Amino acid sequence: MYQLFIANKNYSSWSLRPWLLMQQLSIPFDEKLQQFQADNYQNFRQFSPTAKVPCLHDGDNVVWESLAIVEYLAERHVGVWPADPQARNYARCAASEMHAGFSTLRNVCTMNCGARVQLHNPPAALATELARLDELWQQGLNQFGGPFLTGTSFTAVDAFFAPVAFRVQSFDLKLSENAMAYVQLLLELPAMQAWYQAALLESWREPGHEAEVGLYGTIIKDYRQN
Amino acid sequence: MYQLFIANKNYSSWSLRPWLLMQQLSIPFDEKLQQFQADNYQNFRQFSPTAKVPCLHDGDNVVWESLAIVEYLAERHVGVWPADPQARNYARCAASEMHAGFSTLRNVCTMNCGARVQLHNPPAALATELARLDELWQQGLNQFGGPFLTGTSFTAVDAFFAPVAFRVQSFDLKLSENAMAYVQLLLELPAMQAWYQAALLESWREPGHEAEVGLYGTIIKDYRQN
Ligand SMILES: N[C@@H](CCC(=O)N[C@@H](CS)C(=O)NCC(=O)O)C(=O)O
Ligand SMILES: N[C@@H](CCC(=O)N[C@@H](CS)C(=O)NCC(=O)O)C(=O)O
Repeated sequence: MYQLFIANKNYSSWSLRPWLLMQQLSIPFDEKLQQFQADNYQNFRQFSPTAKVPCLHDGDNVVWESLAIVEYLAERHVGVWPADPQARNYARCAASEMHAGFSTLRNVCTMNCGARVQLHNPPAALATELARLDELWQQGLNQFGGPFLTGTSFTAVDAFFAPVAFRVQSFDLKLSENAMAYVQLLLELPAMQAWYQAALLESWREPGHEAEVGLYGTIIKDYRQN
Repeated sequence: MYQLFIANKNYSSWSLRPWLLMQQLSIPFDEKLQQFQADNYQNFRQFSPTAKVPCLHDGDNVVWESLAIVEYLAERHVGVWPADPQARNYARCAASEMHAGFSTLRNVCTMNCGARVQLHNPPAALATELARLDELWQQGLNQFGGPFLTGTSFTAVDAFFAPVAFRVQSFDLKLSENAMAYVQLLLELPAMQAWYQAALLESWREPGHEAEVGLYGTIIKDYRQN
């Protein structure tokens, strides 16, 4: 049985990606949730060579880095990437762009599932990145016919953008109509709902992640129950 | 015939990765070198959706992002990733870690092939990242027997770390003996030598990239011939 090490569902955007992918494809795994602390290094190093989550254990194989986890699963399970070569190429390019890019979106609109945040003077790069995100999504939605980025099935590229859906919800970000419909589709997936509900119920908060929200915004509503 | 869009060989670390991989595997391509300018957006957008290099064109297929280029090639050519599943997993994890990580190394020791730089008070994170890099390389070299990271053949993971070899040379970085031998091996590859010689002969310099070196260091020697 796979073991998937993740961190707090409220905060850990990278953890969400493989978790959601495995849920959507019905790949069984043991969830190993580790709480973020002021310093995770000693704890996270016990299961992950970078001291980061997500990290997948498959017997003796340790797979770190979300994109490598996806490729590892793609070699073993059908449906991780789209079957059509053009769609698969788009999916890999887009996931890779997300993996190393969109740094302003990630830093300014840090994932905090339960919070609703009013942004104050976000850096100009945020609008540039949102425009690129919209363009990238439109490319997939138009070329492959939707409702997912590469057509009728959820694949790893959708998993890679799932944290963006929570960010749009939390920070009230505006995208084109098509893109907003895609965000809504992601948010309504049963597995996304399950992640969200678990995030709201988490009983511990990590001051570092809470402070990040305050850099460019104010929490105006909080659905967390603890 | 593939077209590979890259930028100045002296500076463009991301371009080097697929370029070197394709050279090492004898995959033919037309090199399309575009000079960096103060603002590349208008020019680079003509061939790359992110306005970044590298970008591979294969007929109508546009492949952006270095990691996606590697996976695209891996579906079409033998030897891009190691054949052994454990080595392939290590290779993908390490390439992915490089793709999104080592940001201090990348920012402080920016690639500038022809320059030799004396660093001044680099941030503490540099030593942390170099220690992790060394550990990561040792893992591959020890587990798969060297001299490349996953054994006797050069694969995409070596291409992903090739820019680090130029950085070690330019910034006189210190790594363990094993790791230094690996750096030397990369620097001596004929294709690396060809890239390096072409970099030295480039007749244009880009002020932005030159300024980056100055943030934490001083150029003490310059092998560029123009
Ligand atoms: N490039 C990595 C990013 C992983 C990452 O940054 N994870 C964060 C949590 S979302 C983490 O573990 N941080 C630990 C820490 O900052 O101590 C991946 O794709 O998996
Ligand atoms: N994540 C991208 C990074 C590409 C990248 O940052 N390329 C740089 C050159 S090495 C670039 O094109 N910069 C253009 C610019 O800054 O205007 C990849 O893996 O290909």
